[in-house]
Amino acid sequence: MANPTPADTIVALATAQGISAIAVIRLSGEDSISLVNRLFKGKDLTQEPSHTLHYGTLQDSESVLDEVLVSIFKAPRSFTTENSVEISCHGSPLIVKEIIKALLKHGARLAEPGEFTKRAFMHGRLDLAQAEAVADLINAETDNARQAALNQMRGGFSKEINRLREELIHFASLIELELDFGEEDVEFAKRSDLKKLIYQIQGYLTSLIKSFDQGNVIKNGVPTVIAGKPNAGKSTLLNLLLNEEKAIVSDIAGTTRDVIEDEIVLGGINFRFIDTAGLRDTQDVIEAMGVERTRDRMKKASLIIYIVDLSNSSIDTIETELEELKQLSIPHIKVGNKLDKADPTLADQLKQKGFILISAKQGEHVEELKQKIVSLFEVNDVKSGDVMVTNLRHYQNLIQTNESLTRVLEGMDNSITGDFLAMDIRQALHYLGEITGTISSEDLLANIFGKFCIGK
Amino acid sequence: MANPTPADTIVALATAQGISAIAVIRLSGEDSISLVNRLFKGKDLTQEPSHTLHYGTLQDSESVLDEVLVSIFKAPRSFTTENSVEISCHGSPLIVKEIIKALLKHGARLAEPGEFTKRAFMHGRLDLAQAEAVADLINAETDNARQAALNQMRGGFSKEINRLREELIHFASLIELELDFGEEDVEFAKRSDLKKLIYQIQGYLTSLIKSFDQGNVIKNGVPTVIAGKPNAGKSTLLNLLLNEEKAIVSDIAGTTRDVIEDEIVLGGINFRFIDTAGLRDTQDVIEAMGVERTRDRMKKASLIIYIVDLSNSSIDTIETELEELKQLSIPHIKVGNKLDKADPTLADQLKQKGFILISAKQGEHVEELKQKIVSLFEVNDVKSGDVMVTNLRHYQNLIQTNESLTRVLEGMDNSITGDFLAMDIRQALHYLGEITGTISSEDLLANIFGKFCIGK
Repeated sequence: MANPTPADTIVALATAQGISAIAVIRLSGEDSISLVNRLFKGKDLTQEPSHTLHYGTLQDSESVLDEVLVSIFKAPRSFTTENSVEISCHGSPLIVKEIIKALLKHGARLAEPGEFTKRAFMHGRLDLAQAEAVADLINAETDNARQAALNQMRGGFSKEINRLREELIHFASLIELELDFGEEDVEFAKRSDLKKLIYQIQGYLTSLIKSFDQGNVIKNGVPTVIAGKPNAGKSTLLNLLLNEEKAIVSDIAGTTRDVIEDEIVLGGINFRFIDTAGLRDTQDVIEAMGVERTRDRMKKASLIIYIVDLSNSSIDTIETELEELKQLSIPHIKVGNKLDKADPTLADQLKQKGFILISAKQGEHVEELKQKIVSLFEVNDVKSGDVMVTNLRHYQNLIQTNESLTRVLEGMDNSITGDFLAMDIRQALHYLGEITGTISSEDLLANIFGKFCIGK
Repeated sequence: MANPTPADTIVALATAQGISAIAVIRLSGEDSISLVNRLFKGKDLTQEPSHTLHYGTLQDSESVLDEVLVSIFKAPRSFTTENSVEISCHGSPLIVKEIIKALLKHGARLAEPGEFTKRAFMHGRLDLAQAEAVADLINAETDNARQAALNQMRGGFSKEINRLREELIHFASLIELELDFGEEDVEFAKRSDLKKLIYQIQGYLTSLIKSFDQGNVIKNGVPTVIAGKPNAGKSTLLNLLLNEEKAIVSDIAGTTRDVIEDEIVLGGINFRFIDTAGLRDTQDVIEAMGVERTRDRMKKASLIIYIVDLSNSSIDTIETELEELKQLSIPHIKVGNKLDKADPTLADQLKQKGFILISAKQGEHVEELKQKIVSLFEVNDVKSGDVMVTNLRHYQNLIQTNESLTRVLEGMDNSITGDFLAMDIRQALHYLGEITGTISSEDLLANIFGKFCIGK
């Protein structure tokens, strides 16, 4: 039997771009060690054991490229399970470029985004859900998001899903075997046992599905709009919230999901504030467009903090404003601002209606507002080992699996024939298998790994 | 005898900031391995040999921080010659922060800029000139600059300077010994041999000093101003030069030396174009300030490309303009632009005066201009092993050493007494010793290493 074709050698910068003390260039592929060895002056790397570090120079013909430290990983003891090399060089973009150029010249090719992780998946080192968690881990912006991704990367629900899937496959096979016997009316798969198994699987799926609301909040944060009429105090409130908490997130690089004005972490959740213009009826065309955009953003928000000016509003106008808010049916918090200048009767009336009364300018009662914000999205701190669905793709597949299984149950109750039963079970198995990648297509993989960064 | 106090453990992110596949955190200090071991779940790192890699998790109490690869370097086989550890974690700013926080909690402290390299110097792993070359290497923007820094880092002139210095010390000691004999008129240090040695040293110093002009151009590039009247075609020319060559430098991060508009590499040299306003007499106060600033920048430039509009100038006005240029006595190239619309007589006259005639808009004769630019600063490609002074501090010390040695020679010719001779020799030794750091002060070291990046 012929050997499988050895994977070609891929190379990429694995550390962030920029001037720094060191940079790491990563290679993977059967020939990666011997390829680097051709440029390396020092020991013969091909003769060295796995998991060792070697100091020397990289030279392309006569020219010394840099003094480097080379790490060797021998198959299967590497991230990709292939022979792998990490070159630690001086952190100069020019040196990185020259070294990669030389490696390309000697037969490596540039890695595609996520290709190292994709290889780890293809070789069975990670399942698909774990591979996706690698990207989530790198992009995590809060401790909870980091811990959730780490738990998923370290196994998460994969093992349990695979175990339940194996049992389901067993039943599917028995039912398909019955079909072979045609009209003989045998029953290899005991229907009561199958029901029991499906209940068990659905119980587990439901708990995972339920965890998604929290998981999604932990992973993606809460898109939040502060809305209200012009001069109600939107910016003052935002700045007040940010000034106190911003230090926590200020050193984390931004990602590009929305036009986010700013982010704060409250109670372990990332609240992402989306910029809005003040809401008012206006004849000005440009301003009207701004107001329209605010309404759009309110519709897409997961939380609206609606703020009214206590010093300059009547209960009637406020009630009209609230009508609009109610129609959106999005979680919201009603805030009365400028308490220090408020008409006491109005303040009382609004308090009755569940308003939180603050003075943003003087920082009064802001703590109460924060507690209210956090209470709406309360999450427990994620602990090592907690299992939680944070990925929309997994969530959708879990729901589809659950629906297929419900059809199986209904089918049994209606005594449908084994072939239809088997079809629904196979459908459930398909959705379940896609989560961990037991079943996968090139499209699915391209879609998942294409979002990774180069070098991962 | 008591042991010397063990150095405390320093820690820093060694790779560039940002989201990436991996990030590397570096520690150095006698306790660094045992310190990391307290957080590491996997093997007992303290029992593992030097230059090995270990996969495991970092945990702070119950919380898993990340899955990591840990590299171990045992004293003296590390960059700093101390026990050292490199932690390769997922390239998330949040994870990096959490790991460093945990390491600080367990007794490490944040490294100062350049502190790893400073320790390598303090422990004799690198001399001072080599340590400075590490920073130059990281910041190199052209292949020549990289190669020059690499040569210096790998030894450069250090060995030869130290050898000559040793011989000079020998003579200084003999002369000082003569002084002990007071009036007895003995001569341990043969004056003719001393002269011969000084000639030899000065010959070497002179060749190094001479290399600085080229070395400086290679390391720092050529600050270049394109000057001329408004609408002479300055921007068109700059864009033309940049469009063709910019790709070469576009992926190299900028450094902060000037307000640089853009850079191109021609003939291996980085020409750094400095933004200027058009030169003209003006009543407008703001514009006059701009013109004043242009004149300032022209004075500081190492190359001026002076451009006149052939379609819209008279020979008289051009000659007035050139007067100003001549007074600056800075290398310059005179360019006549808009050749396609030129008055043929004017074009001929200017060609006689050494103008290069081009049409920037149509890209005509631009190659000729480029060749002229390069010819003014021609450098040979730096090869592995070429010795060249690129550092202003070294240059100044070489000149001061040379001057002191000239005083020694003059002193001998004038038969001055041994104590004065010895003083001048000691002065030369001091300047020479400061280059490689045989002699150094805290101020000098703080000044040098303070400019390094953190983690180096």
